[in-house]
Amino acid sequence: MENKYDIIILGGGIAGLTAAIYAARANLKTVVLEKSVCGGLVNTTYLIENFPSRPGISGMDLMETVRDQVAAMGVEIREVIEVDRLDLDGPMKTVETDEGCLTAPVVILATGRSPRKLPLDTECEAIHYCAICDGSAYKDKNVLVVGGGNSGIEESMYLLSLGVKHITVIEQMDRLFASDKAQKDLLKNKGRVEIFTSTTIDSLEEENGRLNAVHLYDSKKEDHFKKEIHGIFVYMGHDTQTELFKELIALNDRGYIEAGDNMTTSLAGVFAAGDIVQKKFWQITTAMNDGTIAALNAAEYIRNMNCATDPA
Amino acid sequence: MENKYDIIILGGGIAGLTAAIYAARANLKTVVLEKSVCGGLVNTTYLIENFPSRPGISGMDLMETVRDQVAAMGVEIREVIEVDRLDLDGPMKTVETDEGCLTAPVVILATGRSPRKLPLDTECEAIHYCAICDGSAYKDKNVLVVGGGNSGIEESMYLLSLGVKHITVIEQMDRLFASDKAQKDLLKNKGRVEIFTSTTIDSLEEENGRLNAVHLYDSKKEDHFKKEIHGIFVYMGHDTQTELFKELIALNDRGYIEAGDNMTTSLAGVFAAGDIVQKKFWQITTAMNDGTIAALNAAEYIRNMNCATDPA
Repeated sequence: MENKYDIIILGGGIAGLTAAIYAARANLKTVVLEKSVCGGLVNTTYLIENFPSRPGISGMDLMETVRDQVAAMGVEIREVIEVDRLDLDGPMKTVETDEGCLTAPVVILATGRSPRKLPLDTECEAIHYCAICDGSAYKDKNVLVVGGGNSGIEESMYLLSLGVKHITVIEQMDRLFASDKAQKDLLKNKGRVEIFTSTTIDSLEEENGRLNAVHLYDSKKEDHFKKEIHGIFVYMGHDTQTELFKELIALNDRGYIEAGDNMTTSLAGVFAAGDIVQKKFWQITTAMNDGTIAALNAAEYIRNMNCATDPA
Repeated sequence: MENKYDIIILGGGIAGLTAAIYAARANLKTVVLEKSVCGGLVNTTYLIENFPSRPGISGMDLMETVRDQVAAMGVEIREVIEVDRLDLDGPMKTVETDEGCLTAPVVILATGRSPRKLPLDTECEAIHYCAICDGSAYKDKNVLVVGGGNSGIEESMYLLSLGVKHITVIEQMDRLFASDKAQKDLLKNKGRVEIFTSTTIDSLEEENGRLNAVHLYDSKKEDHFKKEIHGIFVYMGHDTQTELFKELIALNDRGYIEAGDNMTTSLAGVFAAGDIVQKKFWQITTAMNDGTIAALNAAEYIRNMNCATDPA
């Protein structure tokens, strides 16, 4: 009985936790299942400047506040739980986990996405995906940043602020995709930044497990060249985390859910929210929007089903 | 020259201010014009429980924080300014105000809407306009819902799901305007719902600032009667604030802007955000979503125009 809910939310990032807030306010018995700890991708952002009412907060602090808020509203949060199998057909959904089988008429998918890995067959320990987590090891060292989107350029700024000596940014396309302001700001750091477009990694030069240099290739100039580099930070985009339901729910060819206006998916009673949803701007604010809409529509769906379980 | 901007935002509520945050981050010279003081409809909410990371904050405190954040980012905020006329055609838009004429290639409309107020001369704090925001305070209490349209009936369902003990719905016309299904669903809650048409409020019975009862009048039966009521939720509709541009921008028959996915309107360079946009759930989170998308698309529009003015 204790594993019977109104709403099961998969994913404890900002989308899932916002859905939990609205589900709790709708008096629905709600559980959030998170495979590691709550916070999602926001946890990896050092400094958030564009969250209304929270300028300059760290991602981890923001998400800890939201997690506490959700828990205080009576939502059950199960972290470090392993989901083995989903059954999303029919009016009652089943989620099999290593802590038992959970059921609910509604499942909200908010599993997010994860950064894409560097396509190199290496176990080099100097390859990183999170400047906040690993950047401080590179004070007075040279760093390669892979990816010229907003993330790559903004994280380069952060690495410079940590005291990284020099940053080489490479982008495989023929131009950067970061905002003008971000590019301008980065290039203000004269002598500490170089940017190469149409450029990829050929190979790494390691010695005794330490990275000494990276061999690069500029496909436009057809130029092979080498840079003294001690660490690599990768910002090459993301893969949606859909392993559990990619055979059950319709995804587009990029692996995202094309959610309806009401955050519906191809299955009744299954809603989607956050970075897993195809959209133009994957922001914290847009994820909160999804979580809100998914939960409120889920509440309506449950009222229409007349099948809400009695809250504990 | 000082009145030349990249983006002019009309309206200093949460949608307009979120748009301002993202516009500032995109390095665009931005001004927010607000006819009274910033904050919008959120200012009228006493206690906000569903804003991620800010449980239990007052609407005014929340909006003051956001306003300060926007100002600190270098956005110009002009409050108590009167806009006399808009010219939104062509690549450069003009906004005539009592402080002079402002121009920009982009205007974001975020003027919001306001609920139609109960026509009673009272400061009773038990009168509410949003069940999602304030409903949970009325668990095990009696509630009066004013308005028999879809909102009134659907919000009554929602209030029942929150554990409200009994709901009295009144509608001043001689029939309900909600869908048959919504009415039927509501009436399934036997013993918990009563509906009176042709009925209006005579007066409120308060004691020490608490609502105890409401005196009602059925104009068809010419019957005055009294109900024990602890809270009132009013759904008499909203008026969108479109006076300035209702002749310039396409609105639907309810007075809302049917914005495109990218918060576009019927005019190039004019975007919409927040409560003025036709949607299903008018929430703070959904307004922030609109503001984010409007500003980021506006930035893209300006980059494509190649007409950004140099920031001061």
